[in-house]
Amino acid sequence: MPRNKAFILATRPTHDQPAGPHNFRLVESEIAPLADGEVLVRNNYLSLDPYMRARMNDARSYAAPQPIGEVMIGGTVGDVAASRNARYGIGDKVALMGGWQLFSRSDGRDLRKIDLNGPPIQAFLGVLGMPGVTAWYGLTRIIAPKEGETVVVSAATGAVGAVVGQLAKVAGARAVGIAGGAMKCGYAVEELGYDHCIDHQAGDFAEKLAQALPQGIDGLFENVGGAPFAASIRHLNVFSRVAVCGLVASGYDGTPTPLPDMRLLLDRRATMQGFIISDHLELWPNALRELADQVTAGRLRWRESIAEGLEAAPAAFFAMLKGGNFGKQLVKLV
Amino acid sequence: MPRNKAFILATRPTHDQPAGPHNFRLVESEIAPLADGEVLVRNNYLSLDPYMRARMNDARSYAAPQPIGEVMIGGTVGDVAASRNARYGIGDKVALMGGWQLFSRSDGRDLRKIDLNGPPIQAFLGVLGMPGVTAWYGLTRIIAPKEGETVVVSAATGAVGAVVGQLAKVAGARAVGIAGGAMKCGYAVEELGYDHCIDHQAGDFAEKLAQALPQGIDGLFENVGGAPFAASIRHLNVFSRVAVCGLVASGYDGTPTPLPDMRLLLDRRATMQGFIISDHLELWPNALRELADQVTAGRLRWRESIAEGLEAAPAAFFAMLKGGNFGKQLVKLV
Repeated sequence: MPRNKAFILATRPTHDQPAGPHNFRLVESEIAPLADGEVLVRNNYLSLDPYMRARMNDARSYAAPQPIGEVMIGGTVGDVAASRNARYGIGDKVALMGGWQLFSRSDGRDLRKIDLNGPPIQAFLGVLGMPGVTAWYGLTRIIAPKEGETVVVSAATGAVGAVVGQLAKVAGARAVGIAGGAMKCGYAVEELGYDHCIDHQAGDFAEKLAQALPQGIDGLFENVGGAPFAASIRHLNVFSRVAVCGLVASGYDGTPTPLPDMRLLLDRRATMQGFIISDHLELWPNALRELADQVTAGRLRWRESIAEGLEAAPAAFFAMLKGGNFGKQLVKLV
Repeated sequence: MPRNKAFILATRPTHDQPAGPHNFRLVESEIAPLADGEVLVRNNYLSLDPYMRARMNDARSYAAPQPIGEVMIGGTVGDVAASRNARYGIGDKVALMGGWQLFSRSDGRDLRKIDLNGPPIQAFLGVLGMPGVTAWYGLTRIIAPKEGETVVVSAATGAVGAVVGQLAKVAGARAVGIAGGAMKCGYAVEELGYDHCIDHQAGDFAEKLAQALPQGIDGLFENVGGAPFAASIRHLNVFSRVAVCGLVASGYDGTPTPLPDMRLLLDRRATMQGFIISDHLELWPNALRELADQVTAGRLRWRESIAEGLEAAPAAFFAMLKGGNFGKQLVKLV
């Protein structure tokens, strides 16, 4: 048996010492023999996602805190390396919540078999995985854009945002992205098909955003919070819908993203809804089928930022939280 | 022909001179003969409602500003005093947006005939009028309480709030009211059937509210904003719904009601929706039918604060905005 390597959460961030790679510790261990019904998965890719940052805190949050001393939570894809479960044979490709580690044990109930007839395996951590379903839910179930409406997407080139923008275009809406830097904005327009993308790092961000929104905003898919959110909400139209998916620019370290006056909701008869995709597991099969159809039809493109080797995970994770990734952030484990 | 008396909006509130009775002016005029198709209504009661305060401002708001020099907008009930319209005969009882005046002219299209087989005519300005439909929409279409859920209602004994609380009880929910003063709170529990009512004027308001919410809040019907809102949102449950109907405690004069951190929506996967009942005219017939059924069944009670005579309208209006009314605020015109 090979040995396992895993990152555990060793300490929590504190007010004096903000979150960083020092909160994680790499541990090695023997892999004990499988019990009856168990499967051993060799993880190929680990997904790094903003929700993990919330789990590091002990505070009341939408997610239960990550326990100290246990393997850090995370989605993975891999292949079955050993099996004592009749449903899985060696070499089967699977997606699972495998954690930040090389090998994961499972009783099989939390595995999702992957049919590799098209996209590469790591797509099942992105457009055909949790980020894709998140985008699908927020866009189709909360924003539900009508043809000709304007949808604004922050973190427009991220794993979630890129899918939102492209699904908005498929629905016949105008898509306006917000992203950090000219390179991401160029990619958003040229590759992802956004009608406009505004660089929130540029000094004239608010003016440029206003210019790109002559008809206001009908749907806002909020991934970021902070200043991009504050600039966006001024443009909300009557009957607009705001899907609050993430607030990565603020909040984890205690910086709030306020709504300055609830009167805005009344004046615009707007709806703001926070959501977490793990609340809607019953919709995943349908969502994944629709996403796969769009991928097959060539209407969904994506990019990846790949860190090499498990040891690179902590640094890549914190870089991503600051927008250092460009597309879906992955860690290649094999 | 008798002469008409009407209040026009003479001036708008300013930063230096807040809104008050001085903004209105009473004018008298001849009533010109009716044109073909017209109806003259003798208004019996005028409804005073918080939305009117927003109309006094010139700012962008959900309602178009009330034009200066024109009769102040307002719902009325009355009887047909003269008619050149085949659909209306003298003595017919009607509800209309008649304005702050004794007589209103209409081409008949904006009149709603009243069937007086039970409640008194002024009920069609309250439980069987705009406030009732407002309560019905926010409760049934936004909050949609399930049996056993907890619904919190601010301005719990007001024209809208009283209906919300009683409809919540009909739906099998726990109803917790917030009102100003012990008298209103006693009435809320003893007459309207709220499980609890918390006095927001009492020093221990936040503690008492927390004690009344051992299971948190599943639905919040917000009529007030300000401190009651701030205290309520701490208790929002996962998947809770907030119907933002009014923010009478703040906002009209520029005091905002903030949501301190959008992260709340994410943590609780909550939905906040602002609404205005005039956006949903297609639902009024159905809503009014359901409300009439509840009245007939004895499950909807109400109270009225009645000011005597048109001249009393401005003072009664500003007293209501400060919570001086107790139940639906009306002005008796005849």
